[in-house]
Amino acid sequence: MPCITSVEVVDIRFPTSLTQDGSDAMNKDGDYSAAYVVLSTDEAGVSGYGFTFTIGRGNDLCAAAARQRAEPLIGRDVDELCGDLGAVYRELQADSQLRWLGPDKGVIHLALAAVMNAVWDLAARRAGVPLWRLLAEMSPEQLVDAADLRYLTDVLTREQAITLLAGRVSGRKQRIQELQTTGYPCYTTSAGWLGYSDDKLRALCEEAVAEGYKHVKLKVGADLNDDIRRCGIAREVLGPDGHLMIDANQVWDVPEAIEWVKALAGFDPLWIEEPTSPDDVLGHAAIRKAVAPIGVASGEHGMNRVLFKQMFQAGALDYCQLDAARLGSVNEVLAVYLLAAWFDVPVCPHAGGVGLCELVQHLSIFDYIAVSGSLDNRVTEYVDHLHEHFVNPCVVHNGAYILPTAPGYSAEMHRESLQAYSFPNGTYWAGRRETEDL
Amino acid sequence: MPCITSVEVVDIRFPTSLTQDGSDAMNKDGDYSAAYVVLSTDEAGVSGYGFTFTIGRGNDLCAAAARQRAEPLIGRDVDELCGDLGAVYRELQADSQLRWLGPDKGVIHLALAAVMNAVWDLAARRAGVPLWRLLAEMSPEQLVDAADLRYLTDVLTREQAITLLAGRVSGRKQRIQELQTTGYPCYTTSAGWLGYSDDKLRALCEEAVAEGYKHVKLKVGADLNDDIRRCGIAREVLGPDGHLMIDANQVWDVPEAIEWVKALAGFDPLWIEEPTSPDDVLGHAAIRKAVAPIGVASGEHGMNRVLFKQMFQAGALDYCQLDAARLGSVNEVLAVYLLAAWFDVPVCPHAGGVGLCELVQHLSIFDYIAVSGSLDNRVTEYVDHLHEHFVNPCVVHNGAYILPTAPGYSAEMHRESLQAYSFPNGTYWAGRRETEDL
Repeated sequence: MPCITSVEVVDIRFPTSLTQDGSDAMNKDGDYSAAYVVLSTDEAGVSGYGFTFTIGRGNDLCAAAARQRAEPLIGRDVDELCGDLGAVYRELQADSQLRWLGPDKGVIHLALAAVMNAVWDLAARRAGVPLWRLLAEMSPEQLVDAADLRYLTDVLTREQAITLLAGRVSGRKQRIQELQTTGYPCYTTSAGWLGYSDDKLRALCEEAVAEGYKHVKLKVGADLNDDIRRCGIAREVLGPDGHLMIDANQVWDVPEAIEWVKALAGFDPLWIEEPTSPDDVLGHAAIRKAVAPIGVASGEHGMNRVLFKQMFQAGALDYCQLDAARLGSVNEVLAVYLLAAWFDVPVCPHAGGVGLCELVQHLSIFDYIAVSGSLDNRVTEYVDHLHEHFVNPCVVHNGAYILPTAPGYSAEMHRESLQAYSFPNGTYWAGRRETEDL
Repeated sequence: MPCITSVEVVDIRFPTSLTQDGSDAMNKDGDYSAAYVVLSTDEAGVSGYGFTFTIGRGNDLCAAAARQRAEPLIGRDVDELCGDLGAVYRELQADSQLRWLGPDKGVIHLALAAVMNAVWDLAARRAGVPLWRLLAEMSPEQLVDAADLRYLTDVLTREQAITLLAGRVSGRKQRIQELQTTGYPCYTTSAGWLGYSDDKLRALCEEAVAEGYKHVKLKVGADLNDDIRRCGIAREVLGPDGHLMIDANQVWDVPEAIEWVKALAGFDPLWIEEPTSPDDVLGHAAIRKAVAPIGVASGEHGMNRVLFKQMFQAGALDYCQLDAARLGSVNEVLAVYLLAAWFDVPVCPHAGGVGLCELVQHLSIFDYIAVSGSLDNRVTEYVDHLHEHFVNPCVVHNGAYILPTAPGYSAEMHRESLQAYSFPNGTYWAGRRETEDL
């Protein structure tokens, strides 16, 4: 039998803090990082690649946790693992000693995501198809068996989930053809990082519009006068019909969020993203009620499916921004897509960081084909950083993700990138230590 | 100036899985563990001790995270740190790169708890008083400045918190005297671990009653027929006036929880503890509504103050079981006590594990003296395991914690215990590896 022969975990960090790419009101100096997992097998040339995303310090904790999480996979039959992707997820998740450190949240959950993302990548590569197609060719029963529905049955049972998916089977082929023509719509955040000057902001907004984007997102929340000026610039460039989104990255308490967003209402934002603590379901619901018709978006720090269940129950979100490397891989992502469809909330996944765009394109495409069947109010994040490190980087054209065709989950990174940016001993970091006495 | 000279972090694990002490429906084989922090200073004989609690694997992750969390303290002025315990907490908590891994949850938050518990221990030792007295002698303004009220101001402002505490200042001395006579009431969980036989259960219940306990707690949720039989034994020993609590350790979905608890209603349980996911605010509220008058208790996995805020807002809890080593130390514990008093929910802290009893006795005593001023419906957990490893173990007499008198937070462990049980190279683990080929 073919089996998993080894697990390699790399702590890889990129020095993004040098250019303030990614800077916002909460995170001023992130070094975009990944705890990167390679599952090797004894089949010629077949490996699985996955990761979780962090912003620097602590990436070593995720890497160490991923090593522990992946340990039970060594020596295991690859056919068996890839043949029941729900079973392997539940087995790893059920380790009660590691569970104590969550459950289903924080470092151990990020590590589970990294490992199970690699298992899903492996399964798609062995099937010779991109992940979106692997999912799109699974039956409703197979999808629901893979999904983590624990703690969700008060709002969505297995049977209801199957019925929901069964209702979307008939149009799958047609929707694939449609997306092969149009791509999946995305928006750009590259323009609006908080550390950028007004001139750079204006130039990047103009560039985005010229490239076909209809949405632009700005970081806000550090200084209201700055926000008013910056939103003015963006709205001027976008014109009245473009969509402006604003993102506070959790800096406000609930009353302050309401007040601040109302002060920016004149710029007609489509949504306010992460207005407060990502854990505050009832807080988001209160903000949503107060700032309507401005939408409320959150989810990149949505720790698990139980949080999203409540967000939907409480009517707290207009847009669900799940994260492919924070939720426990495709297994838990599936559950959140099912819940979102059940409550009729559009999913607009969080991306950017390291490789998140590469992952979420598969999820959005699959959602349209097999879960929601809708593009209404849906637009996936795209950030133009760090794609050069990926073997199969995502391709965006005219404001849309082009459907990936390479087998897998697009998670594999170049060996040279690992060698340069592995921390602390990759060639980049070793060299910088030498010159800067870091 | 006196300063912090070094940080020592020990991964210490006790082999409790051998005797099934601590076994429940979710956690069948925990090895009770602590990531233990020692902050040394250059003042003769003055150190600070703190820890977080885990159940085995992954304790190394908490230890590694605690080293990172504590790093900014090295070389710092001890007078300054202990003079503004809110400022040092906020400084450590604000590390945006580590924050990304939570925020305020999981491994990085457990590690923050370990480190800041040690800072609070250090502050109490330098003041020459037990922690409960350090807190009880702080003014309302000082307490509120130390408390982490971020993300809470929609339900409790700084001014409201000060007013609440100011209303309890007058009776402080009298309540201290009262507790010095009576102790603080506790209940025992030692009787009811799931792995114990019926005979052992009966004997331990009888022993508990003989020792003066009015409350006994049983683990449930693995098998309904077993639960019916075991609850019958406990109720028979307790008689109709004793209090029986049941604890499911998160094994149920919401509908199953309601059904199962109703099937045990005939044994008149005081509360059902952790009926479902600890993150499920709305789920707990639904269960509480359905099983009343049986109370709902939760909190040992309550990840942070934002979770508790919502539990109170939603009317989800009859008893708040905060955990001294999962919340971000006394700073965040203070916030939850303030919220609980504001919403008039009794706090009955989670204890047991390694050293949690030693910590929470201080918190319960302080709550009565300075926050809630009430003992109604309040009873603190007590489990009779592992106290021998502590330099100042808690003392329980006639079903009540006797007020600790030694300076500090009672968190210091014996050097010999660290040498024996540090993992993996302490004498116990090295010896076991040799004999069992572990």
